[in-house]
Amino acid sequence: MLAEIITIGDEILIGQIVDTNSAWMAKQLNAAGIKVKQITSVSDDADHIIAALGQAEQRAKIILITGGLGPTKDDITKYTLAKYFNMGMRRDAGVLAQVEEIFRRFNRPMIESNIRQADVPDGCTVIPNKNGTAPCMWFERDGTIFVSMPGVPFEMMYLMDEEILPKLKQAFELPFIYHKTILTANLGESFLAQQIEEIEDSLPVSIKLAYLPKLGQVRLRLSTSGTNEAQLKEEVEVYAQRIIEKIKPYIVAEDDIAIEKAILDLMDKKGLTLSTAESCTGGFIAQLITQHPGCSSVYAGGAVVYSYELKQSVLGVKAETLEKYGAVSEQTVKEMASGAITHFNTDYSVAVSGIAGPDGGTVDKPVGTVWIAVANRNGVVAKLFTFGSKRAQNIERSAIAALTMILNLLKEDNN
Amino acid sequence: MLAEIITIGDEILIGQIVDTNSAWMAKQLNAAGIKVKQITSVSDDADHIIAALGQAEQRAKIILITGGLGPTKDDITKYTLAKYFNMGMRRDAGVLAQVEEIFRRFNRPMIESNIRQADVPDGCTVIPNKNGTAPCMWFERDGTIFVSMPGVPFEMMYLMDEEILPKLKQAFELPFIYHKTILTANLGESFLAQQIEEIEDSLPVSIKLAYLPKLGQVRLRLSTSGTNEAQLKEEVEVYAQRIIEKIKPYIVAEDDIAIEKAILDLMDKKGLTLSTAESCTGGFIAQLITQHPGCSSVYAGGAVVYSYELKQSVLGVKAETLEKYGAVSEQTVKEMASGAITHFNTDYSVAVSGIAGPDGGTVDKPVGTVWIAVANRNGVVAKLFTFGSKRAQNIERSAIAALTMILNLLKEDNN
Repeated sequence: MLAEIITIGDEILIGQIVDTNSAWMAKQLNAAGIKVKQITSVSDDADHIIAALGQAEQRAKIILITGGLGPTKDDITKYTLAKYFNMGMRRDAGVLAQVEEIFRRFNRPMIESNIRQADVPDGCTVIPNKNGTAPCMWFERDGTIFVSMPGVPFEMMYLMDEEILPKLKQAFELPFIYHKTILTANLGESFLAQQIEEIEDSLPVSIKLAYLPKLGQVRLRLSTSGTNEAQLKEEVEVYAQRIIEKIKPYIVAEDDIAIEKAILDLMDKKGLTLSTAESCTGGFIAQLITQHPGCSSVYAGGAVVYSYELKQSVLGVKAETLEKYGAVSEQTVKEMASGAITHFNTDYSVAVSGIAGPDGGTVDKPVGTVWIAVANRNGVVAKLFTFGSKRAQNIERSAIAALTMILNLLKEDNN
Repeated sequence: MLAEIITIGDEILIGQIVDTNSAWMAKQLNAAGIKVKQITSVSDDADHIIAALGQAEQRAKIILITGGLGPTKDDITKYTLAKYFNMGMRRDAGVLAQVEEIFRRFNRPMIESNIRQADVPDGCTVIPNKNGTAPCMWFERDGTIFVSMPGVPFEMMYLMDEEILPKLKQAFELPFIYHKTILTANLGESFLAQQIEEIEDSLPVSIKLAYLPKLGQVRLRLSTSGTNEAQLKEEVEVYAQRIIEKIKPYIVAEDDIAIEKAILDLMDKKGLTLSTAESCTGGFIAQLITQHPGCSSVYAGGAVVYSYELKQSVLGVKAETLEKYGAVSEQTVKEMASGAITHFNTDYSVAVSGIAGPDGGTVDKPVGTVWIAVANRNGVVAKLFTFGSKRAQNIERSAIAALTMILNLLKEDNN
């Protein structure tokens, strides 16, 4: 079963927002056995929306549309859908009651544009949107289903989870799609490929292998689809295990999880605790860790120490160390990591100090110079990295390098 | 001048990665006076790529393609482009030298798949990629330009900045596109629209107004395009100033910047300093702040205090407060904010303590219960929020609410 996603909104096409909805929807659809054929982003322009709908209808049986349902004049999705399906508009009593209820709850007066939120094409089925005033609309034509949802992520997510996916599962007999992902670190894509070439060449045509490189990590993804769930999993697992056996030293996780989640799982199992001491990554590592539910069993917390003052008062870095070697130095980053162990009383810690840029570089320490240290109760090791000139990338690459160093130390301590 | 972006890769269509490249590219293209008509994501499938290229060629004069250029077997973009343009393949000596140089630099042996990176369609112009082994390829046919770039963000960004955008500006006479964005907070989209209805109705057809709501904030964007840069700016600015005058209490920034950047700018101007004390947001606020270059003049740092122990040792929260009222309480969050002022020695601070979920909720304090406090040297105020059930959204909404509270306090203190 093929689906397409159409996201509507000028804000996407001028790059003002990143379309995160599509990836989330694609993931859910895949899990339900629906393959996404294409994702298309178009502007708030009726002719363009109609053209995109027409092309999508030729390729797929399910067309999910987000965006363009706000109360303001630039939002034209529902009027365009009415035109596409040659329908008139009607005022839906259920939606109106829902809009009125939301305004009552927030104790706000309703205005004409809020009332117009209840207008829908007269041939659609309205799906109640509990979290907002824009209605969700379901259309069917010649066996193809079209669903128009608001672009506000949490409204769309709730509608997908609670309403759209269950209805799609009912409407179609869906195959089972299975992905097995293996996360690796410390070896480049082409070297991984060389190491597992024989296994890759022996894969049956029904199993596809993809390499997904990102910031010093490569994810290997085996994909297949069919009707017998257990058999598909078993078949993929045989090849997955062969690959894992072959490249064991580079395996971070045998699952589609992030490296920090692999660290949390490993430490949780062993009852170990972790803290962070960040300068140039500015809390980026902490927020990567704390996005995972249940992280508090491992992660005690940490500090973001931008100023010299905080490096000393919060982590106990010595004034003479900062003076003699500077904030971006092996000595400072080691004292930061050791300080985290002592001050935050954890088994492991990681510390990062670098020049994220774009300013602050010198001849000796250009932008992209980053020192990272990891510590346990027995000692501390540090490593120098030289990244590039872009701030966001330096922060992200530093974070991934820091997490890789923690994982490597944990593995060493485990042996 | 119209452009289209085509991103190639199964990982996008199964939702394994979020396509952040397209938004970045769209922003750069817009700034150069090139409008993006459509963004299309397709799978690593030759027929589908060819169909997408054909449709894009009918709509736009510039077609930018990313992805599918890795050394592994699933990457087929360049072979598909050769097919699309009816070209053979040739081994490019320049690319080969560049690949060899990269492998020498990292002291790694080259294998066959690395050498194949130097194969390109024989009718394209190769643009050197200094940051990776995948070549960038430029094609021209009947006045339309096609550029194929690697999907690795920093490789693509460098190529766009240094090579592609300058070449496009040379190839076409480009109009000037002007966007003016106003960031507002604390008032819903429809109420904003009502307040500025008269101004909106008086806009000339050449100026378009869009409402972009996100997490308690609404961005208003006025857009226009033409040839006379100064005149366009002046014309838009007249309407922008009318809007700003009309909704003054809700204005966060008169620019397309994030709320934390507006805070940093305001505090920097006044020589004020800021610290953070985060529990449930886990460093999210810190990393929002520290993504901005130059933030260190205002932001001293902060703490991520997940455990009770760290709340006490790092911020001086009293044990009896935690015991009597719990971590998620007005009393605790106020002590966190006051503690940050004292311990981190800053003029302002913000503290957040809540239940991000999905677990940890109780009848009294369900998931989504969040206390936020802001403090200055004279005192502290706290506010209770009740968000939803999703962890990522609770973290993000808490952060935006916290930043809005800082901004409001700064404005109050300013009066």
